[in-house]
Amino acid sequence: MWRNCVRLARRGLGRGAVLCPDPTVSHCGVVRGLSPAAPCSSLWNSVTWFSQARQSKDYALPNSSWSQGMMDLYSRFLEMCKDGTWKRIPSYDNSIDHTPESLKLTSEKERKETRLFPRNMDTEGVGFEYAMFLNPSEKRMVCLFQPGPYLEGPSGFAHGGSTATIIDSTIGGCAIFVAGRVMTANLSINYRNPIPLGSVVLVDSKVDQVEGRKVFLSCQVRSIDGQTLHAEATALFIQLDSTKSLQQQMSCQ
Amino acid sequence: MWRNCVRLARRGLGRGAVLCPDPTVSHCGVVRGLSPAAPCSSLWNSVTWFSQARQSKDYALPNSSWSQGMMDLYSRFLEMCKDGTWKRIPSYDNSIDHTPESLKLTSEKERKETRLFPRNMDTEGVGFEYAMFLNPSEKRMVCLFQPGPYLEGPSGFAHGGSTATIIDSTIGGCAIFVAGRVMTANLSINYRNPIPLGSVVLVDSKVDQVEGRKVFLSCQVRSIDGQTLHAEATALFIQLDSTKSLQQQMSCQ
Repeated sequence: MWRNCVRLARRGLGRGAVLCPDPTVSHCGVVRGLSPAAPCSSLWNSVTWFSQARQSKDYALPNSSWSQGMMDLYSRFLEMCKDGTWKRIPSYDNSIDHTPESLKLTSEKERKETRLFPRNMDTEGVGFEYAMFLNPSEKRMVCLFQPGPYLEGPSGFAHGGSTATIIDSTIGGCAIFVAGRVMTANLSINYRNPIPLGSVVLVDSKVDQVEGRKVFLSCQVRSIDGQTLHAEATALFIQLDSTKSLQQQMSCQ
Repeated sequence: MWRNCVRLARRGLGRGAVLCPDPTVSHCGVVRGLSPAAPCSSLWNSVTWFSQARQSKDYALPNSSWSQGMMDLYSRFLEMCKDGTWKRIPSYDNSIDHTPESLKLTSEKERKETRLFPRNMDTEGVGFEYAMFLNPSEKRMVCLFQPGPYLEGPSGFAHGGSTATIIDSTIGGCAIFVAGRVMTANLSINYRNPIPLGSVVLVDSKVDQVEGRKVFLSCQVRSIDGQTLHAEATALFIQLDSTKSLQQQMSCQ
């Protein structure tokens, strides 16, 4: 799958995306073990719910801090959205607006004074600049990520925790689209090469397997030219009961 | 080890800490495979360097956002510092002040407009509130962590990426004290129970083994009463050549 993704970045993304279904993911089988609450057909509805969220600021749109590399990659993915194969995913500064309406609990619908972790800085460019695109038929979510100077770990490079955060967010978004309400159960990351602050990387995640309520995913983080592998990750997410709060389900794992 | 830590939290920490050396960690063997750049004896010097860093704000001190539970735990650890068994670790908002003088590269010594990821919010209480304590003889670092409302993932709970961040920071600090300049190579986290925003947890990390330049560590995140296991993690850090930049060492793994 990754070779195809690199080809996308190199050749304009459109053609490669259409031609590279991931043979490890069955379009129907991927949700076979899941409850009726998250059928394949709900994916597009979920996307629509995301788009129809109330008038919150969408942070996944270009701003003046985006580098030319980030803009070029964003434009290429937008181009690929035109035939409906890919879908741009809006991004808000709170969890509620990230939750499709059908999955919200009554108790969660009120606005709280909380902020979604990767969207907690208002100054453009200093923190997480990112935009995600979903390919529902491939059960794949990619994230264009430009780490700002306030994400530092080793001098000049992104903190390992910030890399973990963008991976968890991307791979988690992918899991939500196949299984609805989910929670991270395991995240294992191999850090291959540090990510320079201000650079642009592509986070590419996909569903590998579904077993009952377990969703197994994998992810690679590469430079936009595909030449540098920054990180590889695997993850296990657990599908939750959409009628119960997280606290009520603490013993579910 | 964890049982001892829970006992610390329950009984006032001081006595338990002295009585519970971790039998899996050899006080001398732990650095046997490492280069002379990081001998056991440098641990205390490193602590001193941390403390003598230039007049940056130390964020690891109580502020009005700290809950009573956070304050109580902090006081207990301070008490344990009196006989020198434990050492409070200051915390700055940039990487340079976190690097012992002996490990700094010439190119890194100038102040940059970057911010250490877990210290990038100026408003007290909204982000990562934490304080770390080192037990050099046990090669163990603990972190008292109170996640603020801007670290949200699932509604009302800390984002998995923020949990990964505080684990990476704590476990990484532990690795630095035994091996000097290091980089995360692998981080694997099992998320057991979500961490409620505003609660206080204890992140307890220790060195398990050292093989050449590889430092293996493990970590548990628990509620301060020890009753709830929020997360468990293992990590591999690689000791770097302190004379070369990260970029120069990209092929070292």
